[in-house]
Amino acid sequence: MYDLVIVGGGPAGITAGIYAARKKIKTLIVTKDFQGQMGKASVIENWPGIKKTSGPKLMASFKNHLNKFKIEILEEEGVINLEKQGNGFLILTDKAKEVVSKSVIIASGKNPRPLKVSGEEKFLGKGVVYCAICDAPLFSGRKIAVIGGGNSGFETAIEMATKYSPKVYILESSLKIAADESLQKKVENNEKIELIKGAMLEEIKGGRFVESIKYKNIILNESKEIEVQGVFVEIGSIPAANFLKDLVNCNEKGEIEINHKTCETKTEGLFAAGDVTDIRDKQIITASGEGAKAALSAYSFLSKKN
Amino acid sequence: MYDLVIVGGGPAGITAGIYAARKKIKTLIVTKDFQGQMGKASVIENWPGIKKTSGPKLMASFKNHLNKFKIEILEEEGVINLEKQGNGFLILTDKAKEVVSKSVIIASGKNPRPLKVSGEEKFLGKGVVYCAICDAPLFSGRKIAVIGGGNSGFETAIEMATKYSPKVYILESSLKIAADESLQKKVENNEKIELIKGAMLEEIKGGRFVESIKYKNIILNESKEIEVQGVFVEIGSIPAANFLKDLVNCNEKGEIEINHKTCETKTEGLFAAGDVTDIRDKQIITASGEGAKAALSAYSFLSKKN
Repeated sequence: MYDLVIVGGGPAGITAGIYAARKKIKTLIVTKDFQGQMGKASVIENWPGIKKTSGPKLMASFKNHLNKFKIEILEEEGVINLEKQGNGFLILTDKAKEVVSKSVIIASGKNPRPLKVSGEEKFLGKGVVYCAICDAPLFSGRKIAVIGGGNSGFETAIEMATKYSPKVYILESSLKIAADESLQKKVENNEKIELIKGAMLEEIKGGRFVESIKYKNIILNESKEIEVQGVFVEIGSIPAANFLKDLVNCNEKGEIEINHKTCETKTEGLFAAGDVTDIRDKQIITASGEGAKAALSAYSFLSKKN
Repeated sequence: MYDLVIVGGGPAGITAGIYAARKKIKTLIVTKDFQGQMGKASVIENWPGIKKTSGPKLMASFKNHLNKFKIEILEEEGVINLEKQGNGFLILTDKAKEVVSKSVIIASGKNPRPLKVSGEEKFLGKGVVYCAICDAPLFSGRKIAVIGGGNSGFETAIEMATKYSPKVYILESSLKIAADESLQKKVENNEKIELIKGAMLEEIKGGRFVESIKYKNIILNESKEIEVQGVFVEIGSIPAANFLKDLVNCNEKGEIEINHKTCETKTEGLFAAGDVTDIRDKQIITASGEGAKAALSAYSFLSKKN
């Protein structure tokens, strides 16, 4: 039996792990990887003390720090169920491993929101991309469409048009653009990028790989097909909290509601930190701070219990 | 008129500065220095991504990061008064400079709590020390007394006995010791350290420099004098919030009460972050996370206002 299981290996999870290890709590980290959303961040300029780095580099330094401690890790493994069991929690992983623990910190982050259109699953890894930074170089010399007109969609479009693609479409379903003004200007000034507002994606088509997309122009009420070899999905993300069921309260975005001073959830002994929670600012530094809070709360919970 | 004035240059203040600069808010930082409590931290092993560093080193990297941006700074200057003025705030510094700003972030940290005994002021800098790490080497070969039996008092005593002093007394006024068990064991096992419980310090004595201290043993109800050349004050700290008067609510420790999701205080446009607030965990990483939150709240406040 563990004192603490931390679910997730992003900034919140690793920081929680470092704090737990320093408090000598018997801890296990279960995580698919040690990057999460950070794997996608090509440039990071707002981690205090480092003028410029990348997501993978920063996470490597976190992981290296964590490795200094004797802490158990289950990597390439996700949690699919969590429930109360006696005085603690029973955790079930996607490799059918069962783990029991006195306390749990959920730091499982967010996953990209799927498009839910025909062809999306068929062409996954064959032109449909959820991680622009990971896969961008594969589309060198190819036309692509970015789906979503928020900041991340605009950033991806600018990156692709500047470095890789001869032509980049941005498809935004609404008529209003949510991306920052500065990004909108960059897109306007880039002749390789074409912004299409009021465009509802209907289908991704192709043979072995993506060859085109079909969308409906909601202003003209007509469908159109454009030739692209890549579809970059940038329509936001979903908190990875569905394995928790009624152990936590979630807000309308599916984020776990926490006490922001302590990272407590509604279930005693169950804490949450980072992007999976209803924290307003989804930043690396805030997630990391919340990870520390959650670990210190778990420590305090365990001290009272023993 | 500034959009934002940040009071304080520790982890919370600098992180707020970095975030504000990236949002292109017209910002001024007013601070006595760019270290605060961090100047005292000789070893830091819990800043994620860095296995081992020191307070001054870490803060130098923060300051270096901040310098990348065009942000105005008033250094070696404290804020002594803050009040509402029209649509914003009027700030008065201890160099009689007046500044007006639409919003303010208080990140002024904490100051060491004074002993309030005879001789304390007279021997300040002549044997009375509030920053053990700063002044430790000056007491090489000299006997010292540490006042305060909490973690920081015990840590200072161990450091001094191990590296500098032939004899270290710890004076704790209560009969119960608050320091962690592991520290208590180290003190027990160190023959150079003598722990005196129930010891109320009465006077610091000497000629030009400290020569002895007088304390009352509350168990035996008798006064005793011991020869020391240094008095290290480790009895906690006071939030630097007294210039705010009724613009904020403070808890019984004098800490500013905030909304922990947004770092808002009870006054619109006035935010607070880090050790000066009622955040439970006074950590570098948590202060830094809160600094980011406060800056993003100020940005959101200013966006709505304009």
